[in-house]
Amino acid sequence: MSLTIKLRTTPTVSHFDLNRKTHKNPIIVRTPIYHSNKLSTSLVFRTQKMAASHVIKSSLIEPDGGVLIDLVVPENQRDLKASEAEGMTKVQLTKIDLEWVHVISEGWASPLKGFMREDEYLQSLHFNSLRIKNDDGHGSIVNMSLPIVLAIDDETKEKIGNANDVALVGPDQKIVAILRSIEIYKHNKEERIARTWGTIAPGLPYVEEVITPSGNYLIGGDLEVLSPIKYNDGLDGYRLSPKQLRKEFDRRQADAVFAFQLRNPVHNGHALLMNDTRKRLLDMGYKNPILLLHPLGGYTKADDVPLDVRMEQHSKVLEDGVLDPETTIVSIFPSPMHYAGPTEVQWHAKARINAGANFYIVGRDPAGMGHPTEKRDLYDPDHGKKVLSMAPGLEKLNILPFRVAAYDTVAKKMAFFDPSRAKDFLFISGTKMRTFARTGESPPNGFMCPGGWEVLVKYYASLQSQEAKPATVSA
Amino acid sequence: MSLTIKLRTTPTVSHFDLNRKTHKNPIIVRTPIYHSNKLSTSLVFRTQKMAASHVIKSSLIEPDGGVLIDLVVPENQRDLKASEAEGMTKVQLTKIDLEWVHVISEGWASPLKGFMREDEYLQSLHFNSLRIKNDDGHGSIVNMSLPIVLAIDDETKEKIGNANDVALVGPDQKIVAILRSIEIYKHNKEERIARTWGTIAPGLPYVEEVITPSGNYLIGGDLEVLSPIKYNDGLDGYRLSPKQLRKEFDRRQADAVFAFQLRNPVHNGHALLMNDTRKRLLDMGYKNPILLLHPLGGYTKADDVPLDVRMEQHSKVLEDGVLDPETTIVSIFPSPMHYAGPTEVQWHAKARINAGANFYIVGRDPAGMGHPTEKRDLYDPDHGKKVLSMAPGLEKLNILPFRVAAYDTVAKKMAFFDPSRAKDFLFISGTKMRTFARTGESPPNGFMCPGGWEVLVKYYASLQSQEAKPATVSA
Repeated sequence: MSLTIKLRTTPTVSHFDLNRKTHKNPIIVRTPIYHSNKLSTSLVFRTQKMAASHVIKSSLIEPDGGVLIDLVVPENQRDLKASEAEGMTKVQLTKIDLEWVHVISEGWASPLKGFMREDEYLQSLHFNSLRIKNDDGHGSIVNMSLPIVLAIDDETKEKIGNANDVALVGPDQKIVAILRSIEIYKHNKEERIARTWGTIAPGLPYVEEVITPSGNYLIGGDLEVLSPIKYNDGLDGYRLSPKQLRKEFDRRQADAVFAFQLRNPVHNGHALLMNDTRKRLLDMGYKNPILLLHPLGGYTKADDVPLDVRMEQHSKVLEDGVLDPETTIVSIFPSPMHYAGPTEVQWHAKARINAGANFYIVGRDPAGMGHPTEKRDLYDPDHGKKVLSMAPGLEKLNILPFRVAAYDTVAKKMAFFDPSRAKDFLFISGTKMRTFARTGESPPNGFMCPGGWEVLVKYYASLQSQEAKPATVSA
Repeated sequence: MSLTIKLRTTPTVSHFDLNRKTHKNPIIVRTPIYHSNKLSTSLVFRTQKMAASHVIKSSLIEPDGGVLIDLVVPENQRDLKASEAEGMTKVQLTKIDLEWVHVISEGWASPLKGFMREDEYLQSLHFNSLRIKNDDGHGSIVNMSLPIVLAIDDETKEKIGNANDVALVGPDQKIVAILRSIEIYKHNKEERIARTWGTIAPGLPYVEEVITPSGNYLIGGDLEVLSPIKYNDGLDGYRLSPKQLRKEFDRRQADAVFAFQLRNPVHNGHALLMNDTRKRLLDMGYKNPILLLHPLGGYTKADDVPLDVRMEQHSKVLEDGVLDPETTIVSIFPSPMHYAGPTEVQWHAKARINAGANFYIVGRDPAGMGHPTEKRDLYDPDHGKKVLSMAPGLEKLNILPFRVAAYDTVAKKMAFFDPSRAKDFLFISGTKMRTFARTGESPPNGFMCPGGWEVLVKYYASLQSQEAKPATVSA
């Protein structure tokens, strides 16, 4: 397997190429993350050939609804479906719509089988959960906190008319999927935003970039994806589906899987927490707990560190031995980010159930951000873990709340905060960390492994050199 | 029993006095509503003497949580509790806070035992439901869509300090209740409003009058009410508690109780619907279905028809035989109104479960209103009944969706809308009805019984005569 981390656009960041042996960066990259990852190279692509009906049930935790959803059309039916789709009305997808197609198609949102129809949308908005009928005829509840919906404009609605099925067209204008037995309903954006974010203040990233420019109708239906979604950015090999992850956990004979969702670089406080969690699980009697280090790979806001840089940074963290490659799987969670705090953290946890994780680590202010117009956190930092611990449909997941880690100026390392000597501890926020990296200032020794820190410094240097370039005046 | 409907403040409305035999109004009032109501006069006050521990279980439907909550201190303990309360920090209640004390104390919100603590508040906001542990140790879900909370300001919080219990003081400065084992937490008004109403547009009545002026903290705890809440407005006799209603249903040997929530005068379309519902229930095999005509009695917005006028109007509807007094109970639901559409209709239905109703009639756009800043309904008129039919914790309640009634210009009466001859039907909205009454214009014959209509016309005339009076300049 010889994947190349996708280059950012400027040549100054070519040292991110993990495959180059003669590296500009003084720290030589010997073990790219996919080696540390202990994935059998064949696994990643083999499962694409599996029949859609093939069901993997985890020994650790059942997927929501009992059956892991897989909406990728089996290879032997693809030509037929593709010709059928050619004759259907086309619905254009944005880049982020396509990320949701990816998410739904692989079963992260099981038992959801497509974009939400109105009944599902309303349950998600009002109850953060869906009522389903099980095979045994009994009802049950699964968690579903974010509306997973596809917006269309008036013109597209007009074009669709009374059709039952439509074809979904990717940003590259190729047909990606079929949406069957469609239902079109009104997209009340104000209500969707208010109920999802708990505010309609201007400046919410997903709202401004995705919802506000979108159409006034939503279209729901059953999804059939013509072939697995790929990004061809050198990172597809890390985009393991829930089915693939479950297989890998089984292959490693995991008796506990603990998931760590992140959209930031890993510092030693995170690592301390993950290693401590493993220790706690061993103390509880588990013999082989496996860490799923699971960076979010879909849409993130402009000032977050981009996925490829984060993957490079995570690679260094494993390489430097801060996390143990033998008991860690690094994989990409393909969902876009909403920054919807307590509402979104449920989605982050629920999706990991479907991927086979039975323990979920939750920190301070998960999926939170600063209020876009007021000088405060958008959410109470404790609400995320409280809401998560009470959320309908997540009872079967073990929630592991963060212990607070901070920089211990006496021990000169990241350590669990000890309130009895509070003055010895230094809290380094994400914003502070990014400021350090941007200004080239070093964080305290022991905050992050040197290799990982170097990745961030170079990324911000490349940004600055880009910004410093005079704008080209077009004729 | 000789209750007098409370007079509105101007002498021009003295003809609302139901006990006057020589009536200015040509339509003589012979059977005030409380006679039609078939309540044994002793019932209303007898239950006040019952011990708080006395549990009434309905044969028709269990209260949420299995036990009907009653938080009124038994008479023999009142003096003791009152002296104890004297020594506690005082928390001032508004008129509407007191309405909530009333609601909680009588078990409309069962199994809620007081103002919400943060765990309950978060579950209500995010899931519209509460997870409870039953007596048998198993968990279950009850519906709880509105946060029932008590706000305090910074100064009061300061004053409370580390106290465990506080005394609640009514608008008349008398101690009303004790709140025990309190928990104080932040009142994020923006988030509360957004998640409850699905908008934070300015002009939401409950928000502007109740939430915006309220304090920045919420105080939860267990409630003990020192004596039953009374309003001394001549209507207390109609304010039957869930316990009293359940007793009355049993006394009448009801085998089905269907509740009709309203905050508007009853027109013949409503009556058609209620009578039709009764017929449907008889067709289903029920022998003695009882209608609970259940006007909301707490806070309503300024342009709604006031409670006393509505009660007078409902009285005429029964008197004129539009509804059958033998199979109808008119009682007041003491809750304040949020105008929060699909979120609030769940509360309206849930509270009626606790009162013993096992059927609930839901109409177009329940608890809805116009958008405060845009020219449209605030909620999709169909969302109320959809959300209600899917709401967690309401599975045991039979939801009866409205059939649409309108004025049939051919038959010259209110009738179920027949789409095959749509042009024959006239839709008369609440706004239109109020305009008719205000301008003295008659609605089409058969829209409302003449006695009921007269009540509205007189009310609006009294308003206009008040408005016409020159303002008194105070010295």
